[in-house]
Amino acid sequence: MLPVALDAMGGDRAPAEIVSGAHRAVAELGVQVILVGRPADIDDPRDLEVHPASEVIGMGDDPARAVRTRKDSSLVRAAELVRDGRASAMVSAGNTGATVASALLRMGRIKGVSRPAVAAPIPVPGSTPTVLVDAGAMAECQPGWLVQFAQMGSVYAATRYGLESPRVGLLSIGEEASKGTALVKDTHALLSDTPGIRFIGNVEGRDIMSPEVDVVVTDGFTGNVVLKTLEGSLNMLVRSIGGVMLSPEAGQAGTRALELLAPLAEQMDPDATGGAMLLGVDGVCIISHGSSSATAIVNAVAVARDMAEGGLVEALRAAVGAAVGGPRR
Amino acid sequence: MLPVALDAMGGDRAPAEIVSGAHRAVAELGVQVILVGRPADIDDPRDLEVHPASEVIGMGDDPARAVRTRKDSSLVRAAELVRDGRASAMVSAGNTGATVASALLRMGRIKGVSRPAVAAPIPVPGSTPTVLVDAGAMAECQPGWLVQFAQMGSVYAATRYGLESPRVGLLSIGEEASKGTALVKDTHALLSDTPGIRFIGNVEGRDIMSPEVDVVVTDGFTGNVVLKTLEGSLNMLVRSIGGVMLSPEAGQAGTRALELLAPLAEQMDPDATGGAMLLGVDGVCIISHGSSSATAIVNAVAVARDMAEGGLVEALRAAVGAAVGGPRR
Repeated sequence: MLPVALDAMGGDRAPAEIVSGAHRAVAELGVQVILVGRPADIDDPRDLEVHPASEVIGMGDDPARAVRTRKDSSLVRAAELVRDGRASAMVSAGNTGATVASALLRMGRIKGVSRPAVAAPIPVPGSTPTVLVDAGAMAECQPGWLVQFAQMGSVYAATRYGLESPRVGLLSIGEEASKGTALVKDTHALLSDTPGIRFIGNVEGRDIMSPEVDVVVTDGFTGNVVLKTLEGSLNMLVRSIGGVMLSPEAGQAGTRALELLAPLAEQMDPDATGGAMLLGVDGVCIISHGSSSATAIVNAVAVARDMAEGGLVEALRAAVGAAVGGPRR
Repeated sequence: MLPVALDAMGGDRAPAEIVSGAHRAVAELGVQVILVGRPADIDDPRDLEVHPASEVIGMGDDPARAVRTRKDSSLVRAAELVRDGRASAMVSAGNTGATVASALLRMGRIKGVSRPAVAAPIPVPGSTPTVLVDAGAMAECQPGWLVQFAQMGSVYAATRYGLESPRVGLLSIGEEASKGTALVKDTHALLSDTPGIRFIGNVEGRDIMSPEVDVVVTDGFTGNVVLKTLEGSLNMLVRSIGGVMLSPEAGQAGTRALELLAPLAEQMDPDATGGAMLLGVDGVCIISHGSSSATAIVNAVAVARDMAEGGLVEALRAAVGAAVGGPRR
């Protein structure tokens, strides 16, 4: 397999944690990795190939402008490696909007795809994660785009989690088709008539972390708010529970309780999910969260490999191409 | 103080838990309560006044239609008791949409208010709750309505939690004013120029359960999705943690851990919040969650009393009236 292009400069803990993750990915997964970034900033590349890029796009930079003006940035160069057939996938923990823009502008869209979407895995204890799509690529959406998000999310859930016929729900504020915004009502009508997906109707916020649905479709504004709301509430609870259990009052019972909770905490850990997938661009692109550790990078590289080898892009092309009346490939 | 009108028929556990909550509210709070509902269904009213209403609006009924056609329903009659000066407030755990419609149609809007909004308290460990507004009254909103939600949410946070100058954030997908939908960008510009509130700019989903913001303003679609997402994730975690701690493997340490977590669990318990407040109607109206227990009803009645005695409606009238250039009363 071609190597994975890893944006060494992206993320709150870049480049050290990213480079450390790259070394671990090579050792643990046997995957080749190309580090993309400023050679002077990459202290310890060892035997990894460094693809030089002189510029960096920061977490707070305006995505469209940054990608347009910083053509020699690590993000843009990583996307070019995929476009040019030198890498099988790209992974970045940097600016999400700029990652979307780089991938979109350099790799291009899959034929027939109106807009790309971010598919974020939401952990569900005792079950496969729920794929939330769009988790933030497109703040304002049209019904037809959401139908494609449903198709692409369905293909992704099948490829990633081995589900035969993923259940697709439309996020709304009531189960009835009459509930929600005009966007939701129009999308509901379209999804009910879309072949090739298993549409189970509207779902609500409380269903996202349940085993009752596999893919939850929404616009990128609502999806991003939901994703960050979940992150915030889980973080807050983990901190609160940790505080209680590590208090002197808790003593031995607290220590033991944290041991018992470790498997649950690990399943909820954002570092364990392998990152979010950008769907609809003509290449595999993984967006790891901003505070990614080396472990998060190892997991993201593993998913990148699986999706490149598993033919995700080809499957997306077939699903969307079939739906727009194009030839099956 | 005038009695609180309690919809005895509303909620998944009505009428038994509601009536039980009414008795406890009288005993524990010294507040008078009028039970509104079908006398034949209220087994044990004891010395409480029962205001008869022959019809019931179910949880799944279409709100607008139900309120229009069932004029002798417990919800509509409860709202009329407030309108007619016979009750100081109404409380219902029934159909949220129908509660909003009943209050709106029978009590009317506060002069100058464009649309009512549901203000839901989101628990924050170690801090006062964050007021999320609108949590579901208006699925699609205009910027001017959101400005009023900010004003009303601010007054509510001050009256309810004693905050002198509540910090108001606008829910978006990035802190920058340029992020979000057209609705968010337009609202951001208006809020920046609105006197009488302390606007701290955009906030993200992860800030809702933090002590950094007191009032989070959003449209009713996003707000309702957020509220139910939080409910779902907290429920799921509580169940998962409970399962771990009560397993044979956990033994004594598990039992002790649950004891230690009890104060945190209680703070997160939806029954403890006192319910959501409908802001903008000309009377105090509390929407308790559908699965309300007797304890939830006691807490809701306590908040109803506090808000009626504390002059919430008068304060809302002054805030919105001042902003629209009307006379201060």
